[in-house]
Amino acid sequence: MDAKLEKYFKYVDENTKYFIDQLREVVAIPSVSADHTKRHHVVEMGKWLEKRLLDLGCQVKMIDLGMQTLQGVEVPLPPVVLASYGDDKDKKTITIYGHYDVQPALLSDGWNTEPFTLVEEEDGRLVGRGATDDKGPVLGWLLCLEAHQKLDIEIPVNLKFCFEGMEESGSIGLDEVIIDQADKWFKGTDYTCISDNYWLGTTKPALTYGLRGNNYFHLEVSGPQADLHSGVFGGVVQEPMTILTNLLSNLVDINGKIKIPHIYDQVAELTEEEDKTYSSLSFQNSDLINDLKADIVIHSENADSLKSRWRYPSLSIHGVEGAFYDPGSKTVIPSKVTGKFSIRSVPFMDPATISKLVIDHINSEFAKLDSKCKMRVWEESSGRWWYSSPNHPNFVAGSRAIKRVFNVEPEMTREGGSIPVTLTFEEALKTNVLLLPMGAANDGAHSTNEKVDKYNYINGIKLYGAYWAEIAALAK
Amino acid sequence: MDAKLEKYFKYVDENTKYFIDQLREVVAIPSVSADHTKRHHVVEMGKWLEKRLLDLGCQVKMIDLGMQTLQGVEVPLPPVVLASYGDDKDKKTITIYGHYDVQPALLSDGWNTEPFTLVEEEDGRLVGRGATDDKGPVLGWLLCLEAHQKLDIEIPVNLKFCFEGMEESGSIGLDEVIIDQADKWFKGTDYTCISDNYWLGTTKPALTYGLRGNNYFHLEVSGPQADLHSGVFGGVVQEPMTILTNLLSNLVDINGKIKIPHIYDQVAELTEEEDKTYSSLSFQNSDLINDLKADIVIHSENADSLKSRWRYPSLSIHGVEGAFYDPGSKTVIPSKVTGKFSIRSVPFMDPATISKLVIDHINSEFAKLDSKCKMRVWEESSGRWWYSSPNHPNFVAGSRAIKRVFNVEPEMTREGGSIPVTLTFEEALKTNVLLLPMGAANDGAHSTNEKVDKYNYINGIKLYGAYWAEIAALAK
Repeated sequence: MDAKLEKYFKYVDENTKYFIDQLREVVAIPSVSADHTKRHHVVEMGKWLEKRLLDLGCQVKMIDLGMQTLQGVEVPLPPVVLASYGDDKDKKTITIYGHYDVQPALLSDGWNTEPFTLVEEEDGRLVGRGATDDKGPVLGWLLCLEAHQKLDIEIPVNLKFCFEGMEESGSIGLDEVIIDQADKWFKGTDYTCISDNYWLGTTKPALTYGLRGNNYFHLEVSGPQADLHSGVFGGVVQEPMTILTNLLSNLVDINGKIKIPHIYDQVAELTEEEDKTYSSLSFQNSDLINDLKADIVIHSENADSLKSRWRYPSLSIHGVEGAFYDPGSKTVIPSKVTGKFSIRSVPFMDPATISKLVIDHINSEFAKLDSKCKMRVWEESSGRWWYSSPNHPNFVAGSRAIKRVFNVEPEMTREGGSIPVTLTFEEALKTNVLLLPMGAANDGAHSTNEKVDKYNYINGIKLYGAYWAEIAALAK
Repeated sequence: MDAKLEKYFKYVDENTKYFIDQLREVVAIPSVSADHTKRHHVVEMGKWLEKRLLDLGCQVKMIDLGMQTLQGVEVPLPPVVLASYGDDKDKKTITIYGHYDVQPALLSDGWNTEPFTLVEEEDGRLVGRGATDDKGPVLGWLLCLEAHQKLDIEIPVNLKFCFEGMEESGSIGLDEVIIDQADKWFKGTDYTCISDNYWLGTTKPALTYGLRGNNYFHLEVSGPQADLHSGVFGGVVQEPMTILTNLLSNLVDINGKIKIPHIYDQVAELTEEEDKTYSSLSFQNSDLINDLKADIVIHSENADSLKSRWRYPSLSIHGVEGAFYDPGSKTVIPSKVTGKFSIRSVPFMDPATISKLVIDHINSEFAKLDSKCKMRVWEESSGRWWYSSPNHPNFVAGSRAIKRVFNVEPEMTREGGSIPVTLTFEEALKTNVLLLPMGAANDGAHSTNEKVDKYNYINGIKLYGAYWAEIAALAK
């Protein structure tokens, strides 16, 4: 195995230019799923993958998801691209997920270069929309497979791919496909691997074993049938916006402490063992402050910031619908306003319990106000937290692969956000899921000047091959 | 005088159809000042007035206000139309203000008929954008003058007109014109009259002698340089939106009581005499509740609602700029949010004192939070309240004119909103200003299906003639 991997690593290093050219080709397809005028490019990108996978000898199945109305226009949903390679009963089978759509990007948003033209900077940054999220990783798997074929190295595992084109726009239809195909296309999967997140820092590779969940709430206060003039009605009627700000101000304090009674009751206790793991991680509040360009970090200890992100719930107020939001001034009393807020959940909070506690709390606060306006609060959506064992063989293989490529132990990380498909794969396929990031913390996935470092991209492609090899080695 | 007025009233009654046709003609010009694609119609409406005034033998001066950038497009500001009729040293001189631009209106907003096609309903409602605000009144003055000429009745006063085309869009440039022309075009003005507000109810004519002022504030809280993802940063950083909702919730309670210390100190005390005036007014909370389609009225006594509107300050929260405002859900932590709120002021509150109290209060509340985010609060604009003596000769004449036309005493009213030009005329021309409404409370000035009742329109035109006559009679 070692000799084969050595050969593969060498090949990857020697073909850096080709790999970057390939990335340039996919970045050039502006597959922005959120923009109806770009939707045909998402479909185009799906077809690009189909052709490439067929050329590599994969079986491919394009799952048509039908149509969608986007910005008032009927557009096709991009297909889910399923592919498989190998069907050897003596090998383990890995299902690999990625997405081929990207976030919107305009030069005028503040990009230094054309977002859909990959630019290789002198310091090794490969700048372009999708470079790290998630075209670099998706392409990486294909290039890994291709390299093995060119080197005539047998693929040590059976592969199943699942690439979607709607990740940045709510993954419409994906869950249904995974559930439906669990016993069909995905049958026989031993391990699942998702490469769609990031290292904790910029130098140390990571494996990710936990995600927070999210319960999203809408809180609507309504009064008159139509908006009113504050000159005529100010002081005369109860105003929905006054009531809403009152209710929103009773959700969380400015240092992140949630004010909803019993919300912390189900949060896992911090054991001494877990506590120790934070001290060795490459996370610095000072880096955070640099990135944010503002010292607004709540905790003074680095570890406390990570704990807040990974293992404690948080509540954010996202905005208000229905009130005046433009620049300038308007003397309106909005008739109906809807506050939006969400709670990031952690082990072992039960989503239904969170929902009940929030709604009970707001009902009780509203009752205290004795208001004549109407109030409704509901859970708009909810996704559970995910927490896997970092000692599972899937993670052991990932860890060994990292050791091979980078000659270090991975940082075992969790994320503050959610990647809902992780849970879907875990539950539908009944397999362990490994999150195996390629990019670094500062890649700016949804931001301007998104990049992947050449170092991460090239070593990521090596890592994928090493991961396959280590999965295969597990069985022996 | 009586015979002449009788003759005039009779003529108005007999020419109802012509007057409505004339209103139809001006409503058909969609002079929406807020829409750059309609701006040429505002200019067209100004020219219509110019021609009409010249045909009536007026001297006319069109004041060019230059250009404006609106919605990114360079458009001309519509001219201020100045006109004068008569220069008899033995007569009193009245300056009359009105505006010829209108609010936006689209059939799709919920109009039952084309907004720019005047429709005469069977119940006497003349429906069309601008019918009551303010084309009916502006045209009314011209038709009054024309009728006198046709009847060969001498105009008993000298007239000066000031018609602007930007009232619905901030009256850009108007104050400067009034101030500049105070000793020129408006020289010799004895009384000013503005017909751009409404009766208190729907049956009794009114004279208006008071308006509330308005101090508008922006309260900005900023944290990170860019918006953040609540998964990654929730619980880790202080969030501007949490701080803003906290500060906004400390401004006013849900029953309109302003929480800013000392804000009520300068409010005029309610004398027994003033208190009595409220009991006879034709205002019912039940009408209000019907109009609002919701019982959200704070006070159970009719008089208390009017006092709240007219003689007590109020604070309304209008909205938030920079937060998520669309329908749906977004897990954003907004980086910079600006709350918008304003205080309606009343006699004898000093605008500068209001500003200081508000800013001091917010600074003090923000200091209590001990936050790492940045906060700025400033007064964006301020307009003083206006309060005139209802016993001034200008009001006496108005009152007598109402008695002549309607055979009742007027309701002496104030308004909760502001009409800033009132103060400008009072101060620049150093004359008393009478607000002489034509329309009724339910005309829906800025709403869909705006109307003026034929009763109000026709009797309003009579009222204008009677007002001129009564002003002339004062001198005798």
